[in-house]
Amino acid sequence: MNKEILYILLPDFAGHEMVYLAEAVASDEYALKENPKYVSKFVAPTLTPVKSIGGFRLLPDYSFDTMPDDYAALVLVGGFGWTTPIADKVASIVKHAIEKGKIVGAICNAASFMAKHGFLNNIKHTGNGIEQLSIWGRENYTNSNGYVNAQAVSDASIVTANGSATLEFAKELLLLLKNDTPERIEMYYQFNKQGFCDLFK
Amino acid sequence: MNKEILYILLPDFAGHEMVYLAEAVASDEYALKENPKYVSKFVAPTLTPVKSIGGFRLLPDYSFDTMPDDYAALVLVGGFGWTTPIADKVASIVKHAIEKGKIVGAICNAASFMAKHGFLNNIKHTGNGIEQLSIWGRENYTNSNGYVNAQAVSDASIVTANGSATLEFAKELLLLLKNDTPERIEMYYQFNKQGFCDLFK
Repeated sequence: MNKEILYILLPDFAGHEMVYLAEAVASDEYALKENPKYVSKFVAPTLTPVKSIGGFRLLPDYSFDTMPDDYAALVLVGGFGWTTPIADKVASIVKHAIEKGKIVGAICNAASFMAKHGFLNNIKHTGNGIEQLSIWGRENYTNSNGYVNAQAVSDASIVTANGSATLEFAKELLLLLKNDTPERIEMYYQFNKQGFCDLFK
Repeated sequence: MNKEILYILLPDFAGHEMVYLAEAVASDEYALKENPKYVSKFVAPTLTPVKSIGGFRLLPDYSFDTMPDDYAALVLVGGFGWTTPIADKVASIVKHAIEKGKIVGAICNAASFMAKHGFLNNIKHTGNGIEQLSIWGRENYTNSNGYVNAQAVSDASIVTANGSATLEFAKELLLLLKNDTPERIEMYYQFNKQGFCDLFK
């Protein structure tokens, strides 16, 4: 089994949309896991540093040209890059992933990108609202009936979410990946969603 | 006025604890700000890439040796590095910041680090629980009466928070920084805390 989870990052990516998943994969509460089930790897158009919306520069592990053909999951991280021409290079990567039955995640503008390329037409899904999906998707988006008004939706190994749903997005992907027991995944979610003080008051 | 917000990152830093603050500083909902009030800069022990808990490698803007002497705020990002010897190099940086009346933020293990060095003794504060602060702080932590059981606490320009409180931590720092109106800061907080679907249902 391939252990790598690949995160697709474009310039001006939304860092908050990947951190909870990546941390749950790599660590327990107080330390890095000694034998993590998965390893997160970060993919950008080239190997030069890619800047997040928040301004930090991330050094990619792979470029679009050097990323492996096999992996455990493909995660499209949202941000402002999905309206730029470089995003179109991701379409064939996603097509390949879906054809192979890989776990695919797409959050925020990356979910709208999925609509634009017709990848949401056979599954229940969500995103940054039905209006944004329709605007981005135009004639390629034919499944407004499959839109669900939820923070995150998991169907047929594809998880979609809106940009405020990073914790729900992480939870659904962690469940698909069987990263941990459902109970422990739920606890991780609630701990971060409600917060330490409210969870244990 | 100096515009730079400096984030102190040690190896195995917790990426989720910095992203919301950095994104609110740099962007509005749909685009990067044209004239942001502040700019986030990321500081690590050296200029070589520093790895987050989640596994991404961040290219620092400054090292401890090259960071500027003046800045708008100093933010200590939590993670597993605060128990290692390199953390002690941060003590003089924090001492300097507090003496100059700078805005200082410390979240998760970085709040415990503040206790260890006696920086919480004159302020109301919180952190990863009173027990952890007492264990890390030993005889240098003499202000358990000042501990508040809240997600984040802001007092005398110092904001402390527990590791599940990244949104509350960001909110209190954004208020101190007057990054935006209190109403807009609250909206940013609620949008991400409750989530798009629950906020507008």
